[in-house]
Amino acid sequence: MLLSCVDEALCGLVRASGGLSLLKGHRVVLRSDPDNLRGKVALLSGGGSGHEPAHGGYVGAGMLSAAVAGGVFASPPPASVLAAILSLHSAGASGVLLIVKNYTGDRLNFGLAAEQARNHGVAVDMVIVAEDCAFDQPSKAGRRGLCGTIFIHKLAGALAEEGCSLDQIVSKVTEVLKGIGTLGVSLSPCSVPGCLPSFELPPGDMELGLGIHGEAGIKRSKVASADEVVKTMMDHMTNPDSQSHLPLKSGDSVVVCVNNLGALSCLELAVVTRAAIVCLESRGVVVARVMSGSFMTSLEMAGVSLTLMRADQETLRLFDAKTSAPAWPNLSSQCVSGRGYITDPQAVSTRPQDDAHSEGPLSPVMRKALEKVCSTLLEKQEELNSLDRAGGDGDCGNTHAQAARAVQEWLQDHVVPGCPGRLLSVLAGLVQEKMGGSSGAVSFDIKCLLFKNIHMTLSFRYGGADPGDRTMVRVVVVDAAASGAESTRNLTARAGRASYVAAERVTLPDPGAVAVAAILRAVLESLEGKK
Amino acid sequence: MLLSCVDEALCGLVRASGGLSLLKGHRVVLRSDPDNLRGKVALLSGGGSGHEPAHGGYVGAGMLSAAVAGGVFASPPPASVLAAILSLHSAGASGVLLIVKNYTGDRLNFGLAAEQARNHGVAVDMVIVAEDCAFDQPSKAGRRGLCGTIFIHKLAGALAEEGCSLDQIVSKVTEVLKGIGTLGVSLSPCSVPGCLPSFELPPGDMELGLGIHGEAGIKRSKVASADEVVKTMMDHMTNPDSQSHLPLKSGDSVVVCVNNLGALSCLELAVVTRAAIVCLESRGVVVARVMSGSFMTSLEMAGVSLTLMRADQETLRLFDAKTSAPAWPNLSSQCVSGRGYITDPQAVSTRPQDDAHSEGPLSPVMRKALEKVCSTLLEKQEELNSLDRAGGDGDCGNTHAQAARAVQEWLQDHVVPGCPGRLLSVLAGLVQEKMGGSSGAVSFDIKCLLFKNIHMTLSFRYGGADPGDRTMVRVVVVDAAASGAESTRNLTARAGRASYVAAERVTLPDPGAVAVAAILRAVLESLEGKK
Repeated sequence: MLLSCVDEALCGLVRASGGLSLLKGHRVVLRSDPDNLRGKVALLSGGGSGHEPAHGGYVGAGMLSAAVAGGVFASPPPASVLAAILSLHSAGASGVLLIVKNYTGDRLNFGLAAEQARNHGVAVDMVIVAEDCAFDQPSKAGRRGLCGTIFIHKLAGALAEEGCSLDQIVSKVTEVLKGIGTLGVSLSPCSVPGCLPSFELPPGDMELGLGIHGEAGIKRSKVASADEVVKTMMDHMTNPDSQSHLPLKSGDSVVVCVNNLGALSCLELAVVTRAAIVCLESRGVVVARVMSGSFMTSLEMAGVSLTLMRADQETLRLFDAKTSAPAWPNLSSQCVSGRGYITDPQAVSTRPQDDAHSEGPLSPVMRKALEKVCSTLLEKQEELNSLDRAGGDGDCGNTHAQAARAVQEWLQDHVVPGCPGRLLSVLAGLVQEKMGGSSGAVSFDIKCLLFKNIHMTLSFRYGGADPGDRTMVRVVVVDAAASGAESTRNLTARAGRASYVAAERVTLPDPGAVAVAAILRAVLESLEGKK
Repeated sequence: MLLSCVDEALCGLVRASGGLSLLKGHRVVLRSDPDNLRGKVALLSGGGSGHEPAHGGYVGAGMLSAAVAGGVFASPPPASVLAAILSLHSAGASGVLLIVKNYTGDRLNFGLAAEQARNHGVAVDMVIVAEDCAFDQPSKAGRRGLCGTIFIHKLAGALAEEGCSLDQIVSKVTEVLKGIGTLGVSLSPCSVPGCLPSFELPPGDMELGLGIHGEAGIKRSKVASADEVVKTMMDHMTNPDSQSHLPLKSGDSVVVCVNNLGALSCLELAVVTRAAIVCLESRGVVVARVMSGSFMTSLEMAGVSLTLMRADQETLRLFDAKTSAPAWPNLSSQCVSGRGYITDPQAVSTRPQDDAHSEGPLSPVMRKALEKVCSTLLEKQEELNSLDRAGGDGDCGNTHAQAARAVQEWLQDHVVPGCPGRLLSVLAGLVQEKMGGSSGAVSFDIKCLLFKNIHMTLSFRYGGADPGDRTMVRVVVVDAAASGAESTRNLTARAGRASYVAAERVTLPDPGAVAVAAILRAVLESLEGKK
């Protein structure tokens, strides 16, 4: 079963990637164009599985020549390492460089295979990647090899492609390795298939400095904002009091890898990416390149690691070199820091003008009604979310609360127009700008329906919905506000996302209808209170 | 808070990608090289956030010109869509094509913006992507737009880059859309930040046909193997009785997208990728290209969607065209089906020869001892895993069980050599081949230590460990087997992954030592029983 998922995954990778092949009888991924290795140094890496796309995904022109996989979190057997080396040798490689992460098992198994290969007359050398910044005082086993390994794959790959000798490559990457550091943080453990999770982590806690095999980390704390977590990580990584710190000073130029350890959402990863760039720049560090994605994972662990590599122009040139490795991302070779990344809108403003609205006798009444509507929507936020979860995506309350807050903000420094038509036009523009979902467009239409009856036609044209449909109930319910939105219970959604949910699952009132009913009731109550 | 994470994520994406910029005041990602749009058709897509890298990650030469983001799972406001259109128009684009997923909100908001843009004199057209295969009888809202949308981004992008007109692009993608279908399956729901999960799914259940906004699916079943799940999905997607099926017959050529909905491990994704290729080929379908990764996610949902696109040579040419979009993967343009992907080892066999071992008087004794060792290791699998979880990755029992099963298998059709040295040599080769982790290498060394005492030196040289170190206890404990491995409780790991865990957390015996003690005890008991 363990054997099977690793073998199937390797097969999936290789079959999907035209540049890869499998070495028969071994868990070894090879370039499918061995002829292109002739006379060049071949690069071999590998290690336990469970870190996909490492290392098979980094096989290709300009990166690795081959990768050996072990079982999940287990070092590959020396026999397979040896078979890979001999296969690269047979293809005509001038020498083979083993790129090994610093774990006892990998050092033993790759080391034994290297010794055996030398007995076969192959020129073999080995570099150990040990760039973990977790421990102030690393144990005798030394620092672990983590995501920084793929920087070595990339740089050594570019050098090998250019025809550098084994010694030249070893010398260059040994130098670069001194400037690489990695630190991980996680919100959850991971579990080897068929085993229990490797450590326990209560919800709301996070673990700093953990490994990529589910080894627990160095300290725990409460989950904080991305900016705070990244700052803690950077402080730890660069702290000169730690024996495993990365020396980093203002003016240094770095390549950053923001690595999803497995189950972090892509949204969260992008948030961390921004935080990392901002944090480094605040220290005067020049961010030269950023790669952000899943590069060296730990099964389904919900965490992220940051890798920094100090980089001069030569390192950047090698980093930017072309590769066909399937897991290498489509990166730009522009420097991240110092680049303008905001474009000014060149077109005219698209927001309805909100000046020149003169105050009228109705203004105080309208303001009071609006305030009541806003507070009502904020009170009902969770109720609306809850109704929406039954048949939609559970954010109806949030969307309306957003609009309410936008209106509250607008009320603070604007005169409420005396003319109801003007007011609704301004509100429609505001809501359209601030409120997501289809309610924005429909609110816009409520105004149009009431005052111009033009855009309504438009929305039905694009929305493909009739006024009787459930989502459009927001419009129809205007007449039925006093009796509430209870009657929507048995309507079937024919538009909007609620329409994809089986009718029998939806027995609660439509949240949009409930929201509109609440708005109208708030207006009514406010007006009645006035009388 | 909701606003904030979306804005931070967009900033993270844009800052990390040299080819992108943000439109001031809007959640709009634009190409940073607007001059290259002059005279060409510009492509605009977008939708709610939470689907990263969609759609901002697909902005770049050869794909989208811009992407508009809404809040999490909420359609973007028409004002931002309009601002994006006008910005592309100002850059000199000859026309703007809106690529919109079929949701009521998106259709309304993009439709309104399109209408407003036309009033500004912009040539605008819109294509709706609605390729969901979930529903046998789609509701009036029609089929949802899912991951197939990025195929349209890619093909339309290549056509626009070549200078095709708005009409030509609309005509081509409208044709291609008929041959695209998508179906999703999930093992967990997802939750919008700040909200509860959108549906409940008991552990061990999976949900077929769910949407990318946490909408529940069409049916539930027990989790099955990847092959079975993929077969169920393909059957459903291509079932002619369903109104939303994808017509697919033997001989058709397809592009496949295996899309991680969020939190599936990369290992599992690769397993599904293999299953999808094998399943399609078993139906006589030619798999032309495969892309496998996170392309259109649903926050942290642990699921996968499969998208198929029927593809002729022209479609493949457009699919293969170059793009600078940061989320587009590094794909090979080789046809997946029909390619040889297994390489024969060209070197001599590296496994110790196991023929020519003559049976001797000791053979039956050895066989009995070996059988006892194997059954003991299998019995102790969970105990060893449990000890290993305290200080390692929790797989020590699995690794030893693997070796035990390999030996059991070997025993079935091999003569046990009469010479103990020979036997140990054969076992070392077998274990080295079948057993991952450092125990493989160390077992190899046990043999060496006992009979040659040569490779031991080697392993310490590469492993960086002394015989007194905890992981190496496996060797030392030979002398202490009778008293068990209890004494390892207070040893501190100085090599192996256990060395990264704080000493106070490790108060249990070393699992490797326990395994070796158990092996030796089994041998002893077997031999004593013989007397």
